Amino acid sequence: VAKRLEKFKTTIFTQMSSLAIKHGAINLGQGFPNFDGPEFVKEAAIQAIKDGKNQYARGYGVPDLSSAIAERFKKDTGLVVDPEKEITVTSGCTEAIAATMLGLINPGDEVILFAPFYDSYEATLSMAGAKIKCITLRPPDFSVPIDELKSAITQDTRAVLINTPHNPTGKMFTREELSTIASLCIENDVLVFTDEVYDKLAFEMDHISMASLPGMYERTVTLNSLGKTFSLTGWKIGWAIAPLHLTWGVRQAHSFLTFATSTPMQWAAAVALRAPESYYVELKRDYMAKKEILVEGLKAVGFKIFPSSGTYFVVVDHTPFGLENDVAFCEYLIKEVGVVAIPTSVFYLNPEDGKNLVRFTFCKDEGTLRAAVDRMKEKL
Amino acid sequence: VAKRLEKFKTTIFTQMSSLAIKHGAINLGQGFPNFDGPEFVKEAAIQAIKDGKNQYARGYGVPDLSSAIAERFKKDTGLVVDPEKEITVTSGCTEAIAATMLGLINPGDEVILFAPFYDSYEATLSMAGAKIKCITLRPPDFSVPIDELKSAITQDTRAVLINTPHNPTGKMFTREELSTIASLCIENDVLVFTDEVYDKLAFEMDHISMASLPGMYERTVTLNSLGKTFSLTGWKIGWAIAPLHLTWGVRQAHSFLTFATSTPMQWAAAVALRAPESYYVELKRDYMAKKEILVEGLKAVGFKIFPSSGTYFVVVDHTPFGLENDVAFCEYLIKEVGVVAIPTSVFYLNPEDGKNLVRFTFCKDEGTLRAAVDRMKEKL
Ligand SMILES: CSCCC(=O)C(=O)O
Ligand SMILES: CSCCC(=O)C(=O)O
Repeated sequence: VAKRLEKFKTTIFTQMSSLAIKHGAINLGQGFPNFDGPEFVKEAAIQAIKDGKNQYARGYGVPDLSSAIAERFKKDTGLVVDPEKEITVTSGCTEAIAATMLGLINPGDEVILFAPFYDSYEATLSMAGAKIKCITLRPPDFSVPIDELKSAITQDTRAVLINTPHNPTGKMFTREELSTIASLCIENDVLVFTDEVYDKLAFEMDHISMASLPGMYERTVTLNSLGKTFSLTGWKIGWAIAPLHLTWGVRQAHSFLTFATSTPMQWAAAVALRAPESYYVELKRDYMAKKEILVEGLKAVGFKIFPSSGTYFVVVDHTPFGLENDVAFCEYLIKEVGVVAIPTSVFYLNPEDGKNLVRFTFCKDEGTLRAAVDRMKEKL
Repeated sequence: VAKRLEKFKTTIFTQMSSLAIKHGAINLGQGFPNFDGPEFVKEAAIQAIKDGKNQYARGYGVPDLSSAIAERFKKDTGLVVDPEKEITVTSGCTEAIAATMLGLINPGDEVILFAPFYDSYEATLSMAGAKIKCITLRPPDFSVPIDELKSAITQDTRAVLINTPHNPTGKMFTREELSTIASLCIENDVLVFTDEVYDKLAFEMDHISMASLPGMYERTVTLNSLGKTFSLTGWKIGWAIAPLHLTWGVRQAHSFLTFATSTPMQWAAAVALRAPESYYVELKRDYMAKKEILVEGLKAVGFKIFPSSGTYFVVVDHTPFGLENDVAFCEYLIKEVGVVAIPTSVFYLNPEDGKNLVRFTFCKDEGTLRAAVDRMKEKL
């Protein structure tokens, strides 16, 4: 294995999902719904396949999907972008992240990450040869330590990577935090890469896109995807929105990472993104009900909860149960209780920082959530 | 744009397909069929979507597809591989190529390429920081200059990349050539990456997989895909077959490039690969008829043809028509004749080497092929 990937292990999501199957445990680990996506989107994919939309798409995206993404972005942010020049459709947000790093970051460039972070950020920055500077968001509120950020920025800082709503904590960056980051980035000529795949799962406050802040569109790559919003995580449709001067690098990397993304799925994604607003309202309502079940259940079980404002995750402190760290706790939980959670230490450069925290997802039907809570009530 | 991608332009396939649309020209450029894939495969995808196979697949592939790939590989090569440990499903062969380079090649490693070569090889080697050594296959027969290969191999050579049947020339590596390359690789402890996406389009001789040569499986990554064999280039299902010690690197890179590939398409791909042998026989027969139409037509138009043994491409010498180089010829062909071909200079490190050659594809219905030939007969 090449040195750039030596330190990485099988992703924790794959590890935990395999263990879930092996032990017959209820999987509240990896973030994928155990219910299906909407019929009208599935129908659109079926129609596209029947209609013979089965050959290479335009490399950077089926035109109709590019337009639908631009329309949606305008509704969400007020920003008007050129679908031909500022959007790149990718094979999931994971590829959009990789293409952004490999297309825009040079070896030695400094990139600032906030821990805990999604594992592919570190791995793709390593592929790009970036120098990672990591700032830790600390419980209980995971707010941004602005002074640390200020002193982390140097002449060599090329980009700050943010993720809001934030996986794993459910934190949402406040307007104040975003404004401060924006000012620092403008002042120091730094880019922002912003992963907003959970933007439609914002429960306690409104989602704010970094690109919508004054002066920021020009220096921002906005990353998003279909999977979380439409409960179709397996379709792997993602995208990057960025001004032309940044889109060029993203597209070049994308050209040689995958060239193009599944054509029929792209046609269906265009239909999905044009869903009436009521779709999004219902989605949020459904998820709030699920969240309530899980959060109230975890409280009753005896966990200390860190309030989650968005995403379909919630992070808890497991120390009331006396296991030595997050990995040991998750092992016990799988084997003795029959429930899978994700240990958070893998989301930190220094695993110690996550040793008290584990993540549960509530993207499961209510019966499954209740059954998991019951198992924990009984056996923890 | 990051330095690693600075020298690359919009891929020639994208450029030429855009021009085809703009000028209403018949597109014999980019290699995608203008007919649809088989009904039974499309039906399988539709069924998978209906059955709710719409969430993340196992990162390295849906188990049923991994098994189908192993079964097919056994039929083709006699080799028995472990689908759990030696196969990685990717988003098209393009991603398999990128994952192989980024997962196994370190900065400074030397990799030997044969020109002309598919553009993503050079770009992904650049991403990996490899030092490229390029050996040119020369007309009329594009045979491997063994002495040049011998003197190109050094202590720092990590891999030789081959592509058989070969895009763009249609050359197939002979058993003798493969054996010589194999001996050199074993002697010097060098890996082989072999792109065999056109293996089922072998017309004049039998396809031979490098992995099937004695002692080679252990040092070979075999890359393949669904698109060409099943006329579904837009589905973007590819894979890498390699021994565990090499699969590990490929999988790690894949994990962070795309994580997983479209789930319903993978289920359908498994059905496709279990097609009866008659499917492959008919595919070959159909393509031989198409090839005959195009090749005889191009001869009648006055091109000098270089015989193609496999792939759905044929390379010709355009110099009888007096244009200064391949790019000028292709421009003339689009604008004055209404037919798109691919200039081959982009397939060489030194573009001069390709200036007399252009590539046509015959993956189009017979009427389209005849219409293109008629336009050329009339206007060239
Ligand atoms: C790409 S697998 C991980 C899914 C996910 O986003 C998560 O569980 O955090
Ligand atoms: C991935 S686009 C190119 C298709 C192809 O393989 C070719 O035309 O050479």
